[in-house]
Amino acid sequence: MGFCSTTWECLDRYGIILGDLLMTLTIIGAVMAFLRRDSIRRWWVRNRFPEVGGDLPGLQAQLDALVLIVSKPEVPRWLLNQLRPARVAFIASPQSVSVARQLDAEAAAMGITVFGHLTIDDANDPAPTRSAVIQIIGNLRAAGAALIAVDLTGGKTPMSLGAFMAAEECGVQTIYVATEFDAALNQPRLPSARIVRISRPA
Amino acid sequence: MGFCSTTWECLDRYGIILGDLLMTLTIIGAVMAFLRRDSIRRWWVRNRFPEVGGDLPGLQAQLDALVLIVSKPEVPRWLLNQLRPARVAFIASPQSVSVARQLDAEAAAMGITVFGHLTIDDANDPAPTRSAVIQIIGNLRAAGAALIAVDLTGGKTPMSLGAFMAAEECGVQTIYVATEFDAALNQPRLPSARIVRISRPA
Repeated sequence: MGFCSTTWECLDRYGIILGDLLMTLTIIGAVMAFLRRDSIRRWWVRNRFPEVGGDLPGLQAQLDALVLIVSKPEVPRWLLNQLRPARVAFIASPQSVSVARQLDAEAAAMGITVFGHLTIDDANDPAPTRSAVIQIIGNLRAAGAALIAVDLTGGKTPMSLGAFMAAEECGVQTIYVATEFDAALNQPRLPSARIVRISRPA
Repeated sequence: MGFCSTTWECLDRYGIILGDLLMTLTIIGAVMAFLRRDSIRRWWVRNRFPEVGGDLPGLQAQLDALVLIVSKPEVPRWLLNQLRPARVAFIASPQSVSVARQLDAEAAAMGITVFGHLTIDDANDPAPTRSAVIQIIGNLRAAGAALIAVDLTGGKTPMSLGAFMAAEECGVQTIYVATEFDAALNQPRLPSARIVRISRPA
């Protein structure tokens, strides 16, 4: 090439210094990474929740599908009326399966495509609910649903946690219906109901 | 070197073929990765829960610290007696702060170091509980606690979900106390209580 030999020598020496630096840093870095390997691994694999909580007065777009955990019928009925999703699927425990059947019929009457309900047998273990919700989200996506939400209001705490894990693993947002509770009537006071965001995965 | 020229030629041709293959695969891979970039990104950032649910008859080792969400005193009291952690911290809502104060005193009487309680003001939003639990876990770790668990039994569902997210973000295991509920006495039937795993982060 057209460079003179002094230029080549400069380039060569620049390369020598840069190479020495780079190799030294590589060795130091490798040793430090080895010594701190456990904390680096934890940082790397740790779960993250970038968008948590806050009000969600109405979901902007119409949902393709809503997955609901069922205890009592009032709040799911209110939520279906608010959101009018294209499809709905219910998760029930043995105690709430009759409510789920009733909601199947009511949703169908509202013109919502009912994906039926899955009944899990252990409401104290998050694992069965998690599996059920992963399965339902898979089925809903196979049927063409893109914008999906999972409502965690009903069910026992382990069911809500299992459904939450499933939603996070599938990259699906989760919501909750906050209501005041009317102790005299022993049911939620629906005029006070509002939709709260639990989490929107990255 | 001592190789004959035929050997050098073979090595050279091997390099040519390997280089062609590798470059072709690189280009194909880059195009496919570009076309499927959204699903690759989702797969990459998605939260994972490798160990969910199942019985946890007794924690093997003594806990350095237990973080508890408080509603009623019965289950936390039972859990403190079962696990005998070295330190305890409570998360309370405005409704349960008097119970948390009572448990502070009871835990101290059992010889457990009480880290006090944090009161969150909105039990319908997971975000305040999440912040409180992250802060408490940080304080407990600064005080030397390594083996920590968060119990999600008490509190409203959004509080349990917020505490769960905090535990996952900090790499701390979560547990739940499953009990049968005595409707006549309106309290949990403690002889039936057992500790259930919610999740153990990677």
